[in-house]
Amino acid sequence: MSTANSLGNSKRGRRRGSEDTRELILTAARGLFAESGFDAVSIRQIARLAGVDPALIHHYFSSKDELFEACVELPANPAEVLAEIGDYPPNQRAEPLLLAVLGLWESPAQAALLALLKSAVNSPGRSALMRQVLGKLMLPRLILGLEEDPELQRLRGSLVVSQVFGLVMTRYVLKLEPLSSAPLPEVVRWAAPTVQRYLTGNLDGGELSGGLPEFVDG
Amino acid sequence: MSTANSLGNSKRGRRRGSEDTRELILTAARGLFAESGFDAVSIRQIARLAGVDPALIHHYFSSKDELFEACVELPANPAEVLAEIGDYPPNQRAEPLLLAVLGLWESPAQAALLALLKSAVNSPGRSALMRQVLGKLMLPRLILGLEEDPELQRLRGSLVVSQVFGLVMTRYVLKLEPLSSAPLPEVVRWAAPTVQRYLTGNLDGGELSGGLPEFVDG
Repeated sequence: MSTANSLGNSKRGRRRGSEDTRELILTAARGLFAESGFDAVSIRQIARLAGVDPALIHHYFSSKDELFEACVELPANPAEVLAEIGDYPPNQRAEPLLLAVLGLWESPAQAALLALLKSAVNSPGRSALMRQVLGKLMLPRLILGLEEDPELQRLRGSLVVSQVFGLVMTRYVLKLEPLSSAPLPEVVRWAAPTVQRYLTGNLDGGELSGGLPEFVDG
Repeated sequence: MSTANSLGNSKRGRRRGSEDTRELILTAARGLFAESGFDAVSIRQIARLAGVDPALIHHYFSSKDELFEACVELPANPAEVLAEIGDYPPNQRAEPLLLAVLGLWESPAQAALLALLKSAVNSPGRSALMRQVLGKLMLPRLILGLEEDPELQRLRGSLVVSQVFGLVMTRYVLKLEPLSSAPLPEVVRWAAPTVQRYLTGNLDGGELSGGLPEFVDG
């Protein structure tokens, strides 16, 4: 890439310079976000690490959210993908949620999503960024309007993620049949009760035998 | 590694030769299993591709199953991990199943399991092998004794995998809180009703509104 950039197009020198600055800011931001988490990092700290003026960061990125999204190169804007979810009452949110997320995986964005998933699995730093994408940009939309204490809301959100990510892994990465080639509306029908229970149902598992099997230390 | 092998231990030359042959067989088998699937590949084909006598394969591996397991370098024997699962009636199988699989992830085998997961996500060939590990070595044990047609059994199995894999991804790879640091028995309690429904429950989602939201084409 850098070879192609440095060959035969000297007119683009100035543009390249500005792209380099943007990349410098992104590299600094990625490192800090991964290390300390989105909330703990300020624009000022990122500017210091990148060796640029904070005003320059605002020139490239209109907000810290936008900078963060640029850091993880999301193939779609979570705010748009999940925009309609908050319009559904929490007890009817499972189906539209599954349709929105799995629908995105069945769109042309799939290749970019797969690359993102691979990078998260391969690198602890990218995995930390992905954790924050989920925690900052996606979970708040899923649990909007749940009338419970925040810790329980977050637990519900992370359980929803567990099922949605599991479907993604099984259907699009491992391609396990028959789940892999089943029509999307069928998959939604099978998994929606799970997601709905995680969102608003009883998590105590009262439907089951309840206690743990004897061979487990409780 | 090869440097270490070729230095200072000429006495082990013969042993290395035999390790090379074993590796030659494994490479041929990995390629064929990934390309054509476990069932379609014979020991004879593997021997031909590896350029060895079929009897030599039987010298190293007592069965095709054993050869296959060696191909994917499983950190644990699925037959042993899931041995007790079949002892539980299908309608009480979710809790012991989750305890067995997640318990393995919380054992010293975690590093090897993570390496296996990474390789499956990174390479289509390894992902094909992993699909067959699940389909051949694990799913049959999960769905043992379900009185339904085989296609529905496989669907139930793949849905179980979707939730179990999702828990693995969320808890051990992405480390999303609070799911990541919750005690294992709690996780089992939250997820067991999901797994149990996939195994033996109603998959038609009658508990929900049923129909798809209006914005989805049927």
